[in-house]
Amino acid sequence: MYSFTNDYSEGAHPKIMKALIETNDEQCAGYGLDKYCLEATRLLKRQLQNDNVDIHYLVGGTQTNAVFISSVLRPYQAVIAADSGHINVHETGAIEATGHKVLTRPHQDGKLTVAMIESIIEEHSDEHMVQPKMVYISQSTEYGSVYSLDELKDIATLCKKKELYLFVDGARLGSALALPDTPTFKDLADYSDAFYIGGTKMGALFGECLVIVNDSLKADFRYNMKQKGAMMAKGRLLGVQFKELFSNDLYLEIGKYENKMADILRAGLKDFEMMVPSQTNQVFPIMDDELIAKLQQDFSFNIMDRIDDHRHCIRLVTSWATPKEAVNSFVSKLSELLHNNL
Amino acid sequence: MYSFTNDYSEGAHPKIMKALIETNDEQCAGYGLDKYCLEATRLLKRQLQNDNVDIHYLVGGTQTNAVFISSVLRPYQAVIAADSGHINVHETGAIEATGHKVLTRPHQDGKLTVAMIESIIEEHSDEHMVQPKMVYISQSTEYGSVYSLDELKDIATLCKKKELYLFVDGARLGSALALPDTPTFKDLADYSDAFYIGGTKMGALFGECLVIVNDSLKADFRYNMKQKGAMMAKGRLLGVQFKELFSNDLYLEIGKYENKMADILRAGLKDFEMMVPSQTNQVFPIMDDELIAKLQQDFSFNIMDRIDDHRHCIRLVTSWATPKEAVNSFVSKLSELLHNNL
Amino acid sequence: MYSFTNDYSEGAHPKIMKALIETNDEQCAGYGLDKYCLEATRLLKRQLQNDNVDIHYLVGGTQTNAVFISSVLRPYQAVIAADSGHINVHETGAIEATGHKVLTRPHQDGKLTVAMIESIIEEHSDEHMVQPKMVYISQSTEYGSVYSLDELKDIATLCKKKELYLFVDGARLGSALALPDTPTFKDLADYSDAFYIGGTKMGALFGECLVIVNDSLKADFRYNMKQKGAMMAKGRLLGVQFKELFSNDLYLEIGKYENKMADILRAGLKDFEMMVPSQTNQVFPIMDDELIAKLQQDFSFNIMDRIDDHRHCIRLVTSWATPKEAVNSFVSKLSELLHNNL
Amino acid sequence: MYSFTNDYSEGAHPKIMKALIETNDEQCAGYGLDKYCLEATRLLKRQLQNDNVDIHYLVGGTQTNAVFISSVLRPYQAVIAADSGHINVHETGAIEATGHKVLTRPHQDGKLTVAMIESIIEEHSDEHMVQPKMVYISQSTEYGSVYSLDELKDIATLCKKKELYLFVDGARLGSALALPDTPTFKDLADYSDAFYIGGTKMGALFGECLVIVNDSLKADFRYNMKQKGAMMAKGRLLGVQFKELFSNDLYLEIGKYENKMADILRAGLKDFEMMVPSQTNQVFPIMDDELIAKLQQDFSFNIMDRIDDHRHCIRLVTSWATPKEAVNSFVSKLSELLHNNL
Repeated sequence: MYSFTNDYSEGAHPKIMKALIETNDEQCAGYGLDKYCLEATRLLKRQLQNDNVDIHYLVGGTQTNAVFISSVLRPYQAVIAADSGHINVHETGAIEATGHKVLTRPHQDGKLTVAMIESIIEEHSDEHMVQPKMVYISQSTEYGSVYSLDELKDIATLCKKKELYLFVDGARLGSALALPDTPTFKDLADYSDAFYIGGTKMGALFGECLVIVNDSLKADFRYNMKQKGAMMAKGRLLGVQFKELFSNDLYLEIGKYENKMADILRAGLKDFEMMVPSQTNQVFPIMDDELIAKLQQDFSFNIMDRIDDHRHCIRLVTSWATPKEAVNSFVSKLSELLHNNL
Repeated sequence: MYSFTNDYSEGAHPKIMKALIETNDEQCAGYGLDKYCLEATRLLKRQLQNDNVDIHYLVGGTQTNAVFISSVLRPYQAVIAADSGHINVHETGAIEATGHKVLTRPHQDGKLTVAMIESIIEEHSDEHMVQPKMVYISQSTEYGSVYSLDELKDIATLCKKKELYLFVDGARLGSALALPDTPTFKDLADYSDAFYIGGTKMGALFGECLVIVNDSLKADFRYNMKQKGAMMAKGRLLGVQFKELFSNDLYLEIGKYENKMADILRAGLKDFEMMVPSQTNQVFPIMDDELIAKLQQDFSFNIMDRIDDHRHCIRLVTSWATPKEAVNSFVSKLSELLHNNL
Repeated sequence: MYSFTNDYSEGAHPKIMKALIETNDEQCAGYGLDKYCLEATRLLKRQLQNDNVDIHYLVGGTQTNAVFISSVLRPYQAVIAADSGHINVHETGAIEATGHKVLTRPHQDGKLTVAMIESIIEEHSDEHMVQPKMVYISQSTEYGSVYSLDELKDIATLCKKKELYLFVDGARLGSALALPDTPTFKDLADYSDAFYIGGTKMGALFGECLVIVNDSLKADFRYNMKQKGAMMAKGRLLGVQFKELFSNDLYLEIGKYENKMADILRAGLKDFEMMVPSQTNQVFPIMDDELIAKLQQDFSFNIMDRIDDHRHCIRLVTSWATPKEAVNSFVSKLSELLHNNL
Repeated sequence: MYSFTNDYSEGAHPKIMKALIETNDEQCAGYGLDKYCLEATRLLKRQLQNDNVDIHYLVGGTQTNAVFISSVLRPYQAVIAADSGHINVHETGAIEATGHKVLTRPHQDGKLTVAMIESIIEEHSDEHMVQPKMVYISQSTEYGSVYSLDELKDIATLCKKKELYLFVDGARLGSALALPDTPTFKDLADYSDAFYIGGTKMGALFGECLVIVNDSLKADFRYNMKQKGAMMAKGRLLGVQFKELFSNDLYLEIGKYENKMADILRAGLKDFEMMVPSQTNQVFPIMDDELIAKLQQDFSFNIMDRIDDHRHCIRLVTSWATPKEAVNSFVSKLSELLHNNL
């Protein structure tokens, strides 16, 4: 039974495990003030071609979203997201738990659009309603789609004009980076106020790297981390991991690999309708429930939206750890089931 | 210029002012422990035919909603409402400020339905999402419509089955009570876990009367009131006012009067499409922008939803203080404007 | 049985009741945007000799403290107070409920000193601890003492130097204003970042007037009020009341009167040790429990700190409504009890 | 330069690193639902001789305290702690950030006593103050001292009587367990409502194991974890680590080892006054500032409380990773400095 359930079923990429072992016995300063965090930061700043950013290392994605968003917004301010946004659905109200409303519109291919943001702003006109102050997008999105550089720029322009902060959740950033015409690390730093580079779903044991670009959002951020239980005692673990990910383009390489494995799945699924078009490591084919049940005998994966009485959309996820044999085997099995059906 | 903007443009009903003056010099215990609160509570319990309820007096509606809802829900629990619900739109995120998500569906005639609640419950299946635990409805609704007794019973039955609390916001309860086939005070106590009887919009200077029916929600509620700044030092002011409202059916009488004034408006507006059908003290006709502009020369009122390029829905509100002359004058003016247009 | 329990046992000063009645039938804008709030603000600004302040009207003291403090502090910041400060003891954790720690030192005569503030700052050095950012003092204090102008200036100087905001809780400001060498309205505006002028305990039915002096704390304050349930629908009620209090020095006059009544008590108590020296409307004599019990047969008042096995400190409070007969009667009774004891 | 700064300067105990490597390639369920978490839980339950406990694995100590405490308390309830308690001082207001006041008394040898708890309860009598509902103690304490089994029982008895929950922070539980007459795992389960077994400071890379004993505190705890960003995606990492720690008494063995290393320091420091008497892995000698400066040339450690003009208390911490050479070298250096001084 092979699992396409998610991209965090295994431990860490071998290079990361190796680095953790090699550095295990050293004494390091705690709380992210060690030399490995410093070095990871130096490597990333070089890629961003920007020294004037603040970089922090946190443990998980929900945590990073909640700590950052709550550190930015005043009590009466709200964050705008697609209704499919991770903060709206799958974080058990983590943002609301810090006091802030999430304002949503139904997603378009997993994405938020300029028109949606404008319509939310227009609706919120005075102090009897929350004040929209931040836009949250995910790259790649929860449905595997990606924002093009132009789409990012358009949203950024609107945010600038309307004095909204733009925050990019990069839990699966590597799979988006690996595609052509998508924003680079540098583009994200140029067009957003902050973004995070996901580790947990990109080959690290755990860890997310938050980049704060906007000067006005930088002060005292470590207080927020500590208060929300997001400052790791052995912060060196995050430094060691991101140093590896930022060395020799490992982060990008992982993104490319997982997309390639997903491409094989996509090729095998070319006759299926897709819930949302995707070129990244998540694939969302729509299938008959009967077929799904048969595939589940050999593979595990998530069953998502109900389409109609006899069909669901399923989610297949690849990762740095997905062996080529697994995707080939899925494609073969699928083909076999389809032929038998004839 | 007469204002139909809302039902809190004037001070208080003359009987209430009279009672406040007459009791002004007495020394009373503070914080709602005075004899007037006690007497108001006694009067209400008699109407509820139920001694086993806890009754508290608060200052305003947003406050009452936030203090009660936050006192009931565990940190990860959420409240279900129509998207037009006051807590979702017009309380500046007061519920989220206490840590809780408001889960919504588009309203139907201002109301929440059993089907909407079921669909929200179905969507929230595990600990990665908030846990729906309360249903919030307004009687009368923000669009002037009312839940029939059958509708209330159906929602209550679903809540019981799904272990959700049912909370009724009665900011404008009097206008609903005054109609036939709508739930009485007693029905609300029989079918909800808690409800509040609005004073501010029903002829009091201010004040809302919260009735907690469900035993498990009663403990230590006064702590919550005090913590949220909702326990009035001179609580006697609330007692004196609600004693009046609960004496000689004054509360019901005010509801009937404001509905009657609204009926005159409705008669005059019979040729207009209505945004939402209403028999209470709020009327929502859809009008040409040109006509709206002309009416605004003599009357003030809120302009609500944009319908299309040249039409909006407006809101006309009547109250205990609306003189018959004002509604007649509006109807005449409207008729005059329509005739001139021919 | 006459009650010296507090200064909010009665309704409102007759001039205030008169104004409420006279304006009752007028239609006014809601939420504090009416002409009476405007006029009260105009009157106060004239006294402050300062047009560049923002003035808001709220309902109660705990509410005002919580809404203002939570609107100013970032999530990780804390407020410094004497351990006897109202926000630390008697607000059911209202400040903590908005996420902020209250840092305290044992009071000296009910007051906070420069040395206490310095010691708290010194203790809080990095992001593993909260960041002190505001100093909260009460004028007059919870023990009836007052800060002299020099004391206020010294605290203000330290706050400026350490980049702390200074906030003055003036629930009983009138009784302090009425004394010589105490800060005036204008001094408070000159030396604090914000302060509030209490109404509830100074002759109003209810209401507190918040003055925000520091420009950086002004933006969007009404959002905070609305979110916390502190924006009164019929805001005109607050405007009408404070317009009266700010007219013809009524606020000061009430302070003088209640101090004078307390002076009579003090004269009668001159042989008793005082818990804290006070010249305002609260008196804290230390008495034998036996004597206390006898006084309780004719008067009600609060029993405060236990001093030793047979003595407690009691609290006697006077107000605008305390008749001279009541204080004289207390003094006579006391004298009679003391003589009988011989 | 050897560091005695803390017990989290190195990575993980070799047995733990080995287990992480060996399991790295396996596909596991996420979020703590994997077989390793299950196995660790089975091992611990056997030691507790109690199947009826809920066990959860979190990432860090501040996080565990905040998630658990906020999941238990109602909005108006508070937690009692020694003023030296980690939640009061070194968590940047994490508890207050979830809305709850921490009520303190000055510690006695780092500990909270029955008398302190009683005095706090007595002080909090009504709804104008927070309601104390939980007692928080650390074992071993922040000053290295330990609660004896009798002390634990006495506190537990008081808690039961006063309906307070008892929660034990075991960040450094192993060092306490390793001493005679201290509570065992089973004692903690017998006498507390919940406790956590620290991993981060006891040889794990990271991780804390929370044991909820009281049935009424168990429901839906995973929702709280997820909402506060405390549910690790690769929860298997926690399972693998605690499985090791709970196998072959590794946890206890680490505690014994670090105490033994500290004993060598204590022997070398026998002529120094101690801030607090300690038998665990933290030692708090009081030293002349001059001597401290000389020791700092070869060793790093924290300088704690100022004692007087020329003395401070320092903190020396040992861990599973402290080599015997390091403690011997410290003792030699100290002896050498003292002799040279003569």
